[in-house]
Amino acid sequence: KNHGCRVRCCAVQTHSAHSFLSENKFQLDDVIEAQQFDRDILNAIFEVALDMEKIEKNSQGSQILNGYLMATLFYEPSTRTRLSFESAMKRLGGEVLTTENAREFSSAAKGETLEDTIRTVEGYSDIIVMRHFESGAAKRAAATAEIPVINAGDGPGQHPTQALLDVYTIEREIGKLDGINVALVGDLANGRTVRSLAYLLAKYKDVQIYFVSPDVVKMKDDIKDYLTSKGVAWEESSDLIEVASKCDVVYQTRIQKERFGERIDLYEEARGKYIVDKGVLNAMQKHAVVMHPLPRLDEITVDVDEDPRAAYFRQAKNGLYIRMALLKLLLLGW
Amino acid sequence: KNHGCRVRCCAVQTHSAHSFLSENKFQLDDVIEAQQFDRDILNAIFEVALDMEKIEKNSQGSQILNGYLMATLFYEPSTRTRLSFESAMKRLGGEVLTTENAREFSSAAKGETLEDTIRTVEGYSDIIVMRHFESGAAKRAAATAEIPVINAGDGPGQHPTQALLDVYTIEREIGKLDGINVALVGDLANGRTVRSLAYLLAKYKDVQIYFVSPDVVKMKDDIKDYLTSKGVAWEESSDLIEVASKCDVVYQTRIQKERFGERIDLYEEARGKYIVDKGVLNAMQKHAVVMHPLPRLDEITVDVDEDPRAAYFRQAKNGLYIRMALLKLLLLGW
Amino acid sequence: KNHGCRVRCCAVQTHSAHSFLSENKFQLDDVIEAQQFDRDILNAIFEVALDMEKIEKNSQGSQILNGYLMATLFYEPSTRTRLSFESAMKRLGGEVLTTENAREFSSAAKGETLEDTIRTVEGYSDIIVMRHFESGAAKRAAATAEIPVINAGDGPGQHPTQALLDVYTIEREIGKLDGINVALVGDLANGRTVRSLAYLLAKYKDVQIYFVSPDVVKMKDDIKDYLTSKGVAWEESSDLIEVASKCDVVYQTRIQKERFGERIDLYEEARGKYIVDKGVLNAMQKHAVVMHPLPRLDEITVDVDEDPRAAYFRQAKNGLYIRMALLKLLLLGW
Repeated sequence: KNHGCRVRCCAVQTHSAHSFLSENKFQLDDVIEAQQFDRDILNAIFEVALDMEKIEKNSQGSQILNGYLMATLFYEPSTRTRLSFESAMKRLGGEVLTTENAREFSSAAKGETLEDTIRTVEGYSDIIVMRHFESGAAKRAAATAEIPVINAGDGPGQHPTQALLDVYTIEREIGKLDGINVALVGDLANGRTVRSLAYLLAKYKDVQIYFVSPDVVKMKDDIKDYLTSKGVAWEESSDLIEVASKCDVVYQTRIQKERFGERIDLYEEARGKYIVDKGVLNAMQKHAVVMHPLPRLDEITVDVDEDPRAAYFRQAKNGLYIRMALLKLLLLGW
Repeated sequence: KNHGCRVRCCAVQTHSAHSFLSENKFQLDDVIEAQQFDRDILNAIFEVALDMEKIEKNSQGSQILNGYLMATLFYEPSTRTRLSFESAMKRLGGEVLTTENAREFSSAAKGETLEDTIRTVEGYSDIIVMRHFESGAAKRAAATAEIPVINAGDGPGQHPTQALLDVYTIEREIGKLDGINVALVGDLANGRTVRSLAYLLAKYKDVQIYFVSPDVVKMKDDIKDYLTSKGVAWEESSDLIEVASKCDVVYQTRIQKERFGERIDLYEEARGKYIVDKGVLNAMQKHAVVMHPLPRLDEITVDVDEDPRAAYFRQAKNGLYIRMALLKLLLLGW
Repeated sequence: KNHGCRVRCCAVQTHSAHSFLSENKFQLDDVIEAQQFDRDILNAIFEVALDMEKIEKNSQGSQILNGYLMATLFYEPSTRTRLSFESAMKRLGGEVLTTENAREFSSAAKGETLEDTIRTVEGYSDIIVMRHFESGAAKRAAATAEIPVINAGDGPGQHPTQALLDVYTIEREIGKLDGINVALVGDLANGRTVRSLAYLLAKYKDVQIYFVSPDVVKMKDDIKDYLTSKGVAWEESSDLIEVASKCDVVYQTRIQKERFGERIDLYEEARGKYIVDKGVLNAMQKHAVVMHPLPRLDEITVDVDEDPRAAYFRQAKNGLYIRMALLKLLLLGW
């Protein structure tokens, strides 16, 4: 896939020490789903993200994407994700075209197909970051567009940059991904993030996963079967304290009220069952961390925030570095 | 009209080979309606648009509008038009202030006049691109503002940049404007774009226009009378295939459901009557093109897209070049 | 307070002629409420605003905030205030992340606390400009954020940049603040701006204030008592012409319909009572000015606009300079 009609000066390293560069093994065209990444490319992306972290912390940003234009095409609003991508683009010197309510405001309301919208928007920009309410929309957009497309969440489907930042955070916080113990807590049935995370963790060695969730929102069999097929050890537990004491990562999630419809009683019951509080923190090891994709309601008590093991705001920040890395890789290459 | 209080370095060519420059004949203060342009100024704008096409295709954009600020003041949302203008400004190094739902969000909701809003916004920017729901709003804004105003559509009134990009596209695709045969198809009664296009085509020599539309949305008499008065040949036809075989341009438009109110039956009848499909394409000459202002529903079948004569996405892209040209001309002059 | 993790090159003047610099007396961390400013810091800010006025009028802007990113976090829309801040940032070379409807669109709708939102957004930006519907929200945000926060209005609470621009406008228009006579006209009970202005004027010497308002929206006792305690002379009057003839500034405000609920009759009665028209203008002295925070309905007739003493659009423009000054001071220091 070429990057539209615009001729860019993209330095191509042909004699790199890393064999994958000359082989172009890691060529990134689009970012559509977590499954597209293997362990090697994850590591390579994480190296670039680490460079981005240095750029962002030690200078007024970079100008490597100067002259590039990103279109944030959001069919449903997600301020957090949108601002993260737009900050990433601007920290690298790029510019942004924003539409945060494309479903209501745009030609989609008049019946235009996604494909037609993409063909128009790619004429105005160099890369499209799309959020959509339909599963599979990002794949359709990427199939149409001549320019790179990043999936910023498509309905109940994928949200691959969240999955990448989760794994990146574990590596940054714990120092390794092989041999770790991870507790996935909360809404495991509906949570897009925990499902993707479980999937990606299966790429690493000797990972042990604990599922801790209310009965109504247990992890589904497809992921359990997948983990088993990949040789990943997993078990279900109802003892959060005991699990927390054994884990490197306690990954808490929000029970999503909107999934319970009129059964508010079931929601309220599920919601209060597994809270990460000082008690859980006290059980945890010194090097372990608490993660959360945010937004957080009361499933992590606020007194946990001040503990250095509370990693969720650092995790949100890592989203910036991952997105900077992906924008750099998609627009300039490795 | 001066450009506010800001002193700009606007190189003025006083000894140009083109006499119109020294005469300032083409001085552009605002872009309000298609009628303000004559044939000579259209040609001059198209030359600048062609330069813009080269800038956009061959480099990372230009910085000629660096330091300039465009306010997109949209009283009704139109994502396509807004992104096109904002992309144009940013491709030239300029910056943008955006408001895409000014009707609901701004002081207009508290009863402020358009004139007061303009006086405030012109204090924050160097040029205003306005979309409004009322015919004539752009003219009022331009009368108030000390800085240039571009009409990005005012209700059932004008949408002059669409008209310009349509004519520019015909010239780019067919290579000429004199002596061409053009079919205007679809909703000719309500379509702002076909009315403006017919008006502008009357400025060229030996143009032949064919109207092909369902009875309920026929071209109105004012445009027919205008064409007759200008010596433009026109006729109505119900045979799209036959017309298509004779034309350089088949300009298809969407039947606008919202114009039919509760008469869904009339809408459905009108909608399916003239479809541009492979059959129409097969009747067309090799050099001819299909155009459409977009968004498109099913009045052009998707299998037409792959044919090189499908010009509608190139047409959308030409909107970018026309808008780049207008921003350059209004802010820096010829 | 440091500015997040980003290392900025902020030249610190240690041997300044102004003693306040070496003493760091005027260190600005956040802008939360009008009361935080004393007379000396107001004067110092106004000097910087005057520099900004020169930058904006005489050049294509400055690049001193190049590489800095401002997040406009608006929980309720206010296009005028938002565009003013965004223009200020861009005129200084900075970049902007915008969210203009955070209440509906963001995680706040899912129940996230303001504090959590701030912790996330500060990871993406260098300064936060926040508009909120709850009084005290800005103070909470500033207490959480490691980066500077500017209050762009928090419900019925504070709107300090409006108060600053009002006082700056009086100084620019009248040439002094000590010894001035000011008429506050219109809705004095609900108007946030007149309350803050009265508060700030009390910092100056020999100020005389006249309150001219319908009975239902009279100035409340807390401000009257405060003025008395500070030795500021004030009186109530029902004769606008007579007051106007004695004043340097006639500060008119809009009667806010939304405050009257179902009592439209009371609103209509209050609304027409004190109009600034040609008659009032004729009574005013040559050097005096009419001010208004805008938007204006019919409480100032449009024929007043052309008189050089109509200062309200210059006042709106001064908002730009004040905001440029504050952004500069908060991000780079004095």
